[in-house]
Amino acid sequence: MIRTVDAEYETIAVELRDGVLIVTLNRPESLNAFTITTADELEHLFRAVNDDDDVNAVVVTGSGRAFCAGMDLTTDGNVFGLDETLEPTLHDMGDLQDPVIARGVRDTGGRVTLAVFDCLKPVIAAVNGPAVGIGATLTLSMDARLASTAARFGFVFGRLGITPEAASTWFLTRIVGLDTALDLVYSADILGAADAADIGLVRSVHSPDELLDAALALAHRFTRGRSRVATALTRQMMYRNALLDHPAEAHRIDSLAMFYTSIGDGREGVQAFREKRKPEFEGRVSTDLPDFYTDWIER
Amino acid sequence: MIRTVDAEYETIAVELRDGVLIVTLNRPESLNAFTITTADELEHLFRAVNDDDDVNAVVVTGSGRAFCAGMDLTTDGNVFGLDETLEPTLHDMGDLQDPVIARGVRDTGGRVTLAVFDCLKPVIAAVNGPAVGIGATLTLSMDARLASTAARFGFVFGRLGITPEAASTWFLTRIVGLDTALDLVYSADILGAADAADIGLVRSVHSPDELLDAALALAHRFTRGRSRVATALTRQMMYRNALLDHPAEAHRIDSLAMFYTSIGDGREGVQAFREKRKPEFEGRVSTDLPDFYTDWIER
Amino acid sequence: MIRTVDAEYETIAVELRDGVLIVTLNRPESLNAFTITTADELEHLFRAVNDDDDVNAVVVTGSGRAFCAGMDLTTDGNVFGLDETLEPTLHDMGDLQDPVIARGVRDTGGRVTLAVFDCLKPVIAAVNGPAVGIGATLTLSMDARLASTAARFGFVFGRLGITPEAASTWFLTRIVGLDTALDLVYSADILGAADAADIGLVRSVHSPDELLDAALALAHRFTRGRSRVATALTRQMMYRNALLDHPAEAHRIDSLAMFYTSIGDGREGVQAFREKRKPEFEGRVSTDLPDFYTDWIER
Repeated sequence: MIRTVDAEYETIAVELRDGVLIVTLNRPESLNAFTITTADELEHLFRAVNDDDDVNAVVVTGSGRAFCAGMDLTTDGNVFGLDETLEPTLHDMGDLQDPVIARGVRDTGGRVTLAVFDCLKPVIAAVNGPAVGIGATLTLSMDARLASTAARFGFVFGRLGITPEAASTWFLTRIVGLDTALDLVYSADILGAADAADIGLVRSVHSPDELLDAALALAHRFTRGRSRVATALTRQMMYRNALLDHPAEAHRIDSLAMFYTSIGDGREGVQAFREKRKPEFEGRVSTDLPDFYTDWIER
Repeated sequence: MIRTVDAEYETIAVELRDGVLIVTLNRPESLNAFTITTADELEHLFRAVNDDDDVNAVVVTGSGRAFCAGMDLTTDGNVFGLDETLEPTLHDMGDLQDPVIARGVRDTGGRVTLAVFDCLKPVIAAVNGPAVGIGATLTLSMDARLASTAARFGFVFGRLGITPEAASTWFLTRIVGLDTALDLVYSADILGAADAADIGLVRSVHSPDELLDAALALAHRFTRGRSRVATALTRQMMYRNALLDHPAEAHRIDSLAMFYTSIGDGREGVQAFREKRKPEFEGRVSTDLPDFYTDWIER
Repeated sequence: MIRTVDAEYETIAVELRDGVLIVTLNRPESLNAFTITTADELEHLFRAVNDDDDVNAVVVTGSGRAFCAGMDLTTDGNVFGLDETLEPTLHDMGDLQDPVIARGVRDTGGRVTLAVFDCLKPVIAAVNGPAVGIGATLTLSMDARLASTAARFGFVFGRLGITPEAASTWFLTRIVGLDTALDLVYSADILGAADAADIGLVRSVHSPDELLDAALALAHRFTRGRSRVATALTRQMMYRNALLDHPAEAHRIDSLAMFYTSIGDGREGVQAFREKRKPEFEGRVSTDLPDFYTDWIER
């Protein structure tokens, strides 16, 4: 088992508190602006957390007055870290792990949101201040966004002559609906916390000093008394099944998930239900996911 | 033509009232808890109803004080009816009709919701009391959920160490949105009728003695004066076209549906419109679906 | 470069005002009822507008008191323009450009909404009066619907014994949600402007004499100070990426879009941001879309 809390990172800080890994974007002097290093570290963290059985859920927040001010544009030259000598085609993108494509072409934000997508624990954004550009899209693959009254959200790509990234076009319409999503990216406006809550981008708004506690409480509500294996499968089923062309495809997956959880932690769950006591689930995500899981996510 | 109202069932009761088939989950002494027999009977009913031209719409409700208290966990041993000697893989799920898979692995709730999905008549849930587990997910492939003030909804799988089923991960995000769906399954809370209406899970809330009439009135509003053939095609188009990757795929289907309905009941529809009278549509679902329908749903 | 404003049309009028092409359905004596000619002209227009760099956005409205009263049913005989001697199969629909299928089978409304779908500029509907049948579905592939208080929306196909068309089953559930979409097509009711706004079909409601100005203001808000190339790519990404089965598919596209826009108009965007001035974007949609665009949309 991996202990993510022991990893050493430059741009993020990690703290394990009562089963919840608190990940803090930690360059407050730069409003936690996003760099290639931030992308590498977040991608590493979210892949590692799946093997760390001490972590039941993840909360992501920012240090200082911002959540994340977007890509760090103060670097001279090639701010996006791309290899501008390349002329990538759609065909070249077939292998996302090809080192030339991975480093020279792939959008850095997308590397992180895809790692969050693959995460086997609930992930909650605690947006403590401005979340702009990748700062906003970074939160879209998380399961809930909580905001402080100081939060701001801006899908400002259009102002810079670039396009939305981080697979945000996949996530955003599902969170706020198609028309609102189009409006947010076309208008490139900055939204306050209350407006973000009105359109469903934000789940709830809190005073700045209560935000983190609210996020931790939600993380506990989502995980306490739950089978970690069932939660892991449920998260992937919610994201991966919902857009399949036909519900029979979802049925194939959830039949297998029900089969293996019902002979796993489900035995204890049913037993505890009959005995009117709280269940004690023992399955571990690092070792007890059923075999079909790998085939499923790799297909 | 089949007459579904004459079928004999153990766990459900059926009554045909003015073109609407009222299906009542009918084990009130067990809070209509769901058994393998319930699954078999509901699957049979929803497949048969497509060939019963006396039925224009279906309303599903519960007998006594519950709608459906979930899987019947009072049975000793293997409550989900699975063949625990199997070790099914994703590959094994390729043929859902394989008898070993169909009986030993397939989730029973999914067998029912897929039959409801294939239904050629509008289906309305009249949720008269607690709808928990499969009692809740069972309603998701129906076209509308009406609730009495006594209704409760709980996606409680996480409390039992198991995962959501009945293809609910496919339906739920489309009804209440991704974030709310995640919350419902992670938190596994029980929602009251008003809260369920607030999040869009329930269309309207009624007093207990007015619920069934409200459901019947909606069934009539959806079907009276309509072509049964056009309604059948429309239902399948709404569910099957909406998640295709590209609208040209939907255009292929609706071009064919428009072609054949316009030379079918559509002739009478246009003629009646010109003559400012009510149309008299004669198409029957059991015999008059255009040939492309079979190719379409089997692909 | 094409100048769409110089095209001569019978059933629509076009006017270029400050970078926005105002397209007016222009048969007021027939309540702008839709004919085969309307379909041909709108399809031509929306394909041509992509090559007209003078057009930044399109606003569609109606002349006189209606937006569009639906298919013109006053023509004698075959109102939908289909070749009723054909017996088209699903297989025949494989090639939508086949002349026999294109003229004899394809739904005319779908030809238009697919052209709007492919449009590289924001498209806004200014619904000034009744929008019924194809008049309602025509607006669904547009990015926003603004309504005057005189607007009415009716998905009335069921009253005529026919099915929804114009790929509306693909668009409608994404705009108003699955349950509301089912209700609209089953009930075939006529909605007023306020009700349409309540369900999210309409973005905002205006007095009749302020509607067009509001639509123009929104068109400017969506496009002023923006890279036209980035906006074109963004529009296609929003529609095409959102329903892909997996976000990695979206990531492939947005990596390429970010790559090429960041070395295109994005250079000026970042430079202007650093210099705290407004950017001057020079990319043109007619000539400067990156090469991957063609491969992407044709796949």
